[in-house]
Amino acid sequence: MSPDSELAELVQAVQRAHTLGTVAELLGWDEQVNLPSGAAEMRAGQHAALAEVLHAAASHPRIGELLARLEARPAGALDADALAIVAQARRDYDRATRLPADFVRAKAAQGSRGYHAWARAKAADDFAGYAPVLATNLDFARREAAYLGRGDAPYDYALDKHDPGLTAAAVDRLFAELKRDLVPLVRAITASPQAERARAAAAKLRGFPPDAQQVFLREVTAKLGFDYSRGRIDVSLHPFCSGTGSDVRMTTRYQADQPLDALFGSIHETGHGLYEQGLPAAQLGTALGINAGMAVHESQSRLWENQVARSRGFWAHFEPRWRELFPAQTAGVGSEELYLAINAVEPTLIRVDADEVTYNLHIVLRFEIEKRLFAGDLAVADLPGAWRAAARELLGLEPADDRTGVLQDVHWSDGAFGYFPSYCLGNMIAAQLWARVRTLRPELEAEFARGEFGWLLGWLREHVHVQGRRFGTLELVRRITGEELSPRHLVAYLKERYGSLYLR
Amino acid sequence: MSPDSELAELVQAVQRAHTLGTVAELLGWDEQVNLPSGAAEMRAGQHAALAEVLHAAASHPRIGELLARLEARPAGALDADALAIVAQARRDYDRATRLPADFVRAKAAQGSRGYHAWARAKAADDFAGYAPVLATNLDFARREAAYLGRGDAPYDYALDKHDPGLTAAAVDRLFAELKRDLVPLVRAITASPQAERARAAAAKLRGFPPDAQQVFLREVTAKLGFDYSRGRIDVSLHPFCSGTGSDVRMTTRYQADQPLDALFGSIHETGHGLYEQGLPAAQLGTALGINAGMAVHESQSRLWENQVARSRGFWAHFEPRWRELFPAQTAGVGSEELYLAINAVEPTLIRVDADEVTYNLHIVLRFEIEKRLFAGDLAVADLPGAWRAAARELLGLEPADDRTGVLQDVHWSDGAFGYFPSYCLGNMIAAQLWARVRTLRPELEAEFARGEFGWLLGWLREHVHVQGRRFGTLELVRRITGEELSPRHLVAYLKERYGSLYLR
Repeated sequence: MSPDSELAELVQAVQRAHTLGTVAELLGWDEQVNLPSGAAEMRAGQHAALAEVLHAAASHPRIGELLARLEARPAGALDADALAIVAQARRDYDRATRLPADFVRAKAAQGSRGYHAWARAKAADDFAGYAPVLATNLDFARREAAYLGRGDAPYDYALDKHDPGLTAAAVDRLFAELKRDLVPLVRAITASPQAERARAAAAKLRGFPPDAQQVFLREVTAKLGFDYSRGRIDVSLHPFCSGTGSDVRMTTRYQADQPLDALFGSIHETGHGLYEQGLPAAQLGTALGINAGMAVHESQSRLWENQVARSRGFWAHFEPRWRELFPAQTAGVGSEELYLAINAVEPTLIRVDADEVTYNLHIVLRFEIEKRLFAGDLAVADLPGAWRAAARELLGLEPADDRTGVLQDVHWSDGAFGYFPSYCLGNMIAAQLWARVRTLRPELEAEFARGEFGWLLGWLREHVHVQGRRFGTLELVRRITGEELSPRHLVAYLKERYGSLYLR
Repeated sequence: MSPDSELAELVQAVQRAHTLGTVAELLGWDEQVNLPSGAAEMRAGQHAALAEVLHAAASHPRIGELLARLEARPAGALDADALAIVAQARRDYDRATRLPADFVRAKAAQGSRGYHAWARAKAADDFAGYAPVLATNLDFARREAAYLGRGDAPYDYALDKHDPGLTAAAVDRLFAELKRDLVPLVRAITASPQAERARAAAAKLRGFPPDAQQVFLREVTAKLGFDYSRGRIDVSLHPFCSGTGSDVRMTTRYQADQPLDALFGSIHETGHGLYEQGLPAAQLGTALGINAGMAVHESQSRLWENQVARSRGFWAHFEPRWRELFPAQTAGVGSEELYLAINAVEPTLIRVDADEVTYNLHIVLRFEIEKRLFAGDLAVADLPGAWRAAARELLGLEPADDRTGVLQDVHWSDGAFGYFPSYCLGNMIAAQLWARVRTLRPELEAEFARGEFGWLLGWLREHVHVQGRRFGTLELVRRITGEELSPRHLVAYLKERYGSLYLR
């Protein structure tokens, strides 16, 4: 078969836009890590100039022509990989061309205003001042869906944007089942006398010098497989992972009195980083060389952060080195105390402070509210009350104000609806992948205890990373694990790990 | 007068291209400072994609239309600032549009091949293997000049490229006079018994921890006026300064046994950085907001590095702090020894190792050879011999091989001819500016001794920095100092500073 020149040209155009996108992403990384305080305006100008260039590359008419020709071919003329490339290119091209420039500009301006309105409202605990912004953002989200031909199901569109193929109905089913099992589990753990011991153990970890924390977490993340010849880790206010392929950049932050934060945060980012480092280099930017979506991405970060790094096997290997680096700080902390501190559970009103178990309920809460907002079953003005009721039901806690309730998250302020569910779906997928690998490799945790993490990375590379975005989120999970995505693996994993610690 | 919409549109287009250029420059900075070793290929792809975008922005037909209209206006219709903007935009537009794409591609490929050929030839001391590359590079330089309408004077074109308005005849006159006075001065200094004492003093400076070096040089550069809210300093293999306006990034490198290197290197880069931070923010990218050229840029770095930071006044202020940070390392070094070490003179075959006095002769050597190459008076094959003869005449040293002779510099390998003279012209301009400010402000060095450096920066801001590129190199010097550029100020300065140390 001769090489397909139309397909090759499409790939070239897509990869060109992707390359320019990686430059924009580097500007964003640099802004968080390096930018002098006085250079914000200059950086905004650079972002704007590059955004214009990127849009021109992504909406180039030649891409439209090539897509039309490739899509017009008879069934069977393109193989599965080519079809995946064309489908993803169509998705990106439609997003780049179907939204009128005026709409894009207005939405960006609204997002910026929204962010500042949110920050003000949160500081002043003034939901009423923020409500009109939210209403406008909802309206923009609906209009965006309509431009993309999904005006009938704007929330499905919002979900699909982050996780291809996902629908509100599918998430609803998954979350309902999860909620049924998880609420009683959290109540039981919270009521356990062990909960207080876990908190006390965590509170004993004080005075860990950032330099030595950095040494430790670099050793750990390199051992897990992060390739520092194709990536780096720096410090930023909020941890994140950016970049792809051979240039993946993670960040973390150090606090002397919360040494587990930088460690688990950087292992979390390492999961994201391993995914991006594992994408096929030659295909970067096409459906064969981009991540499968946010939920799958989050499954990679969560798997390494939780299933792996909160396991006894992991600590059997790393605890001696940790004590060696921090002899004074760890002298009064027993091994079981350490393990309890690592797996402390404490319901909180604030999502970003939540432990691994409770976290999922914070997401269920947000999904239920988003769903009702988009369905028109909940008015923006009634959000604070709905939030309080849901927090009481799901977390067993009621926020005293909106600051610790509906105003706590930034996401909605710039219109990022449909984003939260990926966090919890990521946890579900991680648990389902974990169940699968434990069946395939029962000795896995014993290998961790010997410092061997290569088998797991190899398996993820083969079954997740190199798949790119060939498949939708749910189909990818089905193909890898042989069953539909289900919360039961997450519930079973949490019961096993936390039940053994708290409910024995 | 109503705002001129054609001029405004031209400025907007020029600034857009400039903004994209700053992104490309940031990619370059990041490559030297942060890039993971395995990401070189990916970065090359980003550079290439951005170069294409930049070229499209700089050669946009609308710029050509606007220039034609603005240039067609009757004399007096545009004020001096507008004329400067138009002239610089024309210069950039012609460079972007008159070189055929094939030529640009071929020249870039040749530059890349040339670099590797040079590195190989230098390692193997094999000039013969490198000669064909140089011949091709010369040919490319001549063709480039011809495309820009300067086929009659390709070396003038090469000089003007770095320093607007400069000609080989002008440089020839300046360098001949400089050479006449400088060769005997270097001979006299070298023969002085003080020369050996200076070397011995420098050799006593050992074991300076990089962390403390960094503390010191940050204090020094901030005191000189570098605004760290609009810039930063990092570590790279070769020190440089990049960026402009509110985001200026310098680099340095630390060696425990050569503490003066990082210090003077970073003060040098601070001179460049102060210039870029001093350009008018609203005009960045136009003739009113870019630097005047390489020689003027170098005058700023040299003035702070040499005239200021090698002065007794400077050290009267900073020596106590230096001894405080390095008590053990400086215990056996007297103040006069320190000052001698700072101003050590020792002819060397290698330009980049040269002291402030000898350095200029290295440049004269390169200029004389470039001039003869372009005039056709010297064949590429005869370069090694010509270099040896010139080194003997100018430096009193003869290289034993080509590695320490004609093969030492990277510049010609990618076709950067006409670049060297700016270094020495920068020294001349620095000395002439220095003579001027000492007349205006006789108490300047006494102020340095009190840690006051603000007057000098204010004066440079007003007379150099905010002028941007309104004037050609020689005209700018004439306007600021009231006389033609002349080497006599450099010679007088060197005689005064080094004569008092070595020839008393």
